[in-house]
Amino acid sequence: MNSNSSIIQGLDPSDTICAPCTGSGGAITVIRVSGPHAVSCVDSIFASPKGLPLYDRKSHTIAFGRILDAKREIVDEVVISLFRAPHSYTGEDVVEISCHGSRYILHTVLDLLVANGCRMAKPGEFTRRAFLNGKMDLSQAEAVADVIASDSAASHRVAMNQMRGNFSKALRTLRDQLLHLTSLMELELDFSDHEELEFADRSQLLDISNQVQQTISKLANSFKLGNALKNGIPVAIVGETNAGKSTLLNALLGDDKAIVSDVHGTTRDVIEDTINVRGVTFRFIDTAGIRHTDDPVESIGIARSYQKMEQAEIILWVVAEAMANDAPLLQKIKEIAQEKKVILLFNKSDILSESDRSTLAAHYTDLGIPHLFISAKCGQGLSELEETLSHIADLPQYASEDTIVTNLRHYEALISALKAIERVQYGMQSGLSGDFISQDLRECIHHLSDIIGEVSTDSVLQNIFKNFCIGK
Amino acid sequence: MNSNSSIIQGLDPSDTICAPCTGSGGAITVIRVSGPHAVSCVDSIFASPKGLPLYDRKSHTIAFGRILDAKREIVDEVVISLFRAPHSYTGEDVVEISCHGSRYILHTVLDLLVANGCRMAKPGEFTRRAFLNGKMDLSQAEAVADVIASDSAASHRVAMNQMRGNFSKALRTLRDQLLHLTSLMELELDFSDHEELEFADRSQLLDISNQVQQTISKLANSFKLGNALKNGIPVAIVGETNAGKSTLLNALLGDDKAIVSDVHGTTRDVIEDTINVRGVTFRFIDTAGIRHTDDPVESIGIARSYQKMEQAEIILWVVAEAMANDAPLLQKIKEIAQEKKVILLFNKSDILSESDRSTLAAHYTDLGIPHLFISAKCGQGLSELEETLSHIADLPQYASEDTIVTNLRHYEALISALKAIERVQYGMQSGLSGDFISQDLRECIHHLSDIIGEVSTDSVLQNIFKNFCIGK
Repeated sequence: MNSNSSIIQGLDPSDTICAPCTGSGGAITVIRVSGPHAVSCVDSIFASPKGLPLYDRKSHTIAFGRILDAKREIVDEVVISLFRAPHSYTGEDVVEISCHGSRYILHTVLDLLVANGCRMAKPGEFTRRAFLNGKMDLSQAEAVADVIASDSAASHRVAMNQMRGNFSKALRTLRDQLLHLTSLMELELDFSDHEELEFADRSQLLDISNQVQQTISKLANSFKLGNALKNGIPVAIVGETNAGKSTLLNALLGDDKAIVSDVHGTTRDVIEDTINVRGVTFRFIDTAGIRHTDDPVESIGIARSYQKMEQAEIILWVVAEAMANDAPLLQKIKEIAQEKKVILLFNKSDILSESDRSTLAAHYTDLGIPHLFISAKCGQGLSELEETLSHIADLPQYASEDTIVTNLRHYEALISALKAIERVQYGMQSGLSGDFISQDLRECIHHLSDIIGEVSTDSVLQNIFKNFCIGK
Repeated sequence: MNSNSSIIQGLDPSDTICAPCTGSGGAITVIRVSGPHAVSCVDSIFASPKGLPLYDRKSHTIAFGRILDAKREIVDEVVISLFRAPHSYTGEDVVEISCHGSRYILHTVLDLLVANGCRMAKPGEFTRRAFLNGKMDLSQAEAVADVIASDSAASHRVAMNQMRGNFSKALRTLRDQLLHLTSLMELELDFSDHEELEFADRSQLLDISNQVQQTISKLANSFKLGNALKNGIPVAIVGETNAGKSTLLNALLGDDKAIVSDVHGTTRDVIEDTINVRGVTFRFIDTAGIRHTDDPVESIGIARSYQKMEQAEIILWVVAEAMANDAPLLQKIKEIAQEKKVILLFNKSDILSESDRSTLAAHYTDLGIPHLFISAKCGQGLSELEETLSHIADLPQYASEDTIVTNLRHYEALISALKAIERVQYGMQSGLSGDFISQDLRECIHHLSDIIGEVSTDSVLQNIFKNFCIGK
């Protein structure tokens, strides 16, 4: 970590930074100030009834008083919390000002802080400082954003475990094993001319590397679950135009469920509507209505719908009537049903006669796809659909203390570490020279250390923290 | 204040209440807990690393620790601020929990608090308790909401003055003078049979009541200014359809100004867009385009536009071309120009030739209304318009320590008090019997006491606090 490069990006860690750390629109707004001059800077705009400056107060105490502007007029009556370094979130002196939740007051207090030597914090800069000051490692810092973004019990628990350092602990154990292996290998290299010396048995070394490989593999494999917990299981709703796809989505998004609409996650990409069904989060992906067309423009939209089907894990195929001309969609469904879970929904069942139902079922029966009769409009069959969804979601069982990887950056580093340790295994099995093996061991350690931020470059850090919210 | 009636409305003051007091969407959410069981309730879900419960901690200290659920799983790592009665906002024991700003965490912590004996706070209930516990009087409590809603330096200063008790102090001084008057009057009554006793000179009493009347009158008169500062000076933009009214409004609402759109104030009614022009807040009122019509439905819309003109203090009359058929609007403008300030805006001046301008000016010249040529689309003439607006707004000068009445409830009480004191003056001048005068004096005192909440009924309180935000 080169502090110069931080200065270049306007992130000089010797600055004192400030930002609101609560949302707007409440009764109270909290402004966080952190840095070497946090106490003196707030003291210059603060007056307590007893006249005792923050400078003379103890850490973890609360002071009541007024914020005064340059003309010594009262801007607000506030409550101030004082945290002295290193016993604060960032590890620096931190002052939190709780003022009345008015935009006018917020802007006036921030202006006063800036006039007295603070600068506005960049997104995630408080947490970045916590990381740089050793209050948490990088995977813990990333989990802070996940904790804030988590909206279900499961994703919250996973993020909380990571923030509390359980993942880091697992990685450090792995790294210690790998360092031990490396030192044994290098001992062998250094004294390889002394044939009288006895080195560690290669088969013992292979045992250790097998254990390491299994642990890394288990962590990497948890990503599928972690991603489903964090971002929801992707479900594409497909069908002809006017089959009732939007009505179905709206019905599923009813008031009785936890709805997360339009949430831009901290480490996620575009997010569609997610719904929590019986404890499992599903992410519904909108698709354009599909129908046979010769219009080239409309064909592009349909190609996109197919693409979204590829990204989904579950396909809800909505059909309102037997279609004469549904060959292309049918063909696509047939292909996709091999690898994805497809549910066929006969919609508008409230206006279907018994013979309509038989005709429909017969028309699609040879596909071997499970089907349900629903009426999105009347809400019929929806609880059966939810039941089916939560059943076929089929998330692996896991214990609350299990470490689950949810972050794509971590997953990619684990995959790289896995490839390196597999080369180590191969090298040991095929009696490769120690220096080749040693190089792969070091690469494996590098990738694991990257996750906890011990070898991270400034650009990696910048990329991680830019997605945080201001004030965190 | 009858505590039974509070219980009837679900506001039992012996309950411990909880609510988030910050807005959503930030890095941090603060949950406020207040009441006799605040400390024990939070202690039952809180664990600090040192194992020290809040119960054993001092007031105005901060504790770091974890919120645990019923299964003792970690819900969040939090910072807790402790305020012991009576040294808190409400005057009760108050605990503030700063947790990570996730909706999942917020709801889980609130659920845990409720499971441990708290109930969710009603809007304004914390401030209501502060009032009931004598931490502030009613006019101060009302100012809390105004402080939060204020969005300009002027409205903020007025609200802050009121919250800090300057208005209350003025009212208490008045009341003391009136009580003194009353006691002198009643002394006269009690001993009126003893002709040998010498009573206060009636002309001296009249002097005092004249002073009181002048002070009340000055306060009541400040409401026009206070209302303009708080809610903005009402400006109606009127004109024919397609004259460019919306374009003008959008141009005025440009990025370079403080825009407050769609703000539902705490004590205000419907609010239109307000703009801060050179330190003065203007509230622009939308009107339907006016044109000559025989359509009865359209006529209703036009009648409404006329109504809104009545409510406004300033009329911006937008004209894009000389109208052959503008008689009804012209007539209305003529009437209204007697009492309102009207500015005639010739819009679309960017496409007007010199002769067009002369024709327009000539057509409207006999009205004697000041006019400006503007182009709302190109932004021409807008700064002249702003200059004119801020000039004709003509707010009275006032010093920063002046007490300005901004609240309609206070204004109405002051008007009632004014009428009562005027009856006192009349009674004294016309030598009315002391018991009549005394009755009016008592009525005057009653209305002034009503403002600071000393004689307020529960329904008045309910009406005031229901417009607060939750958590305040």
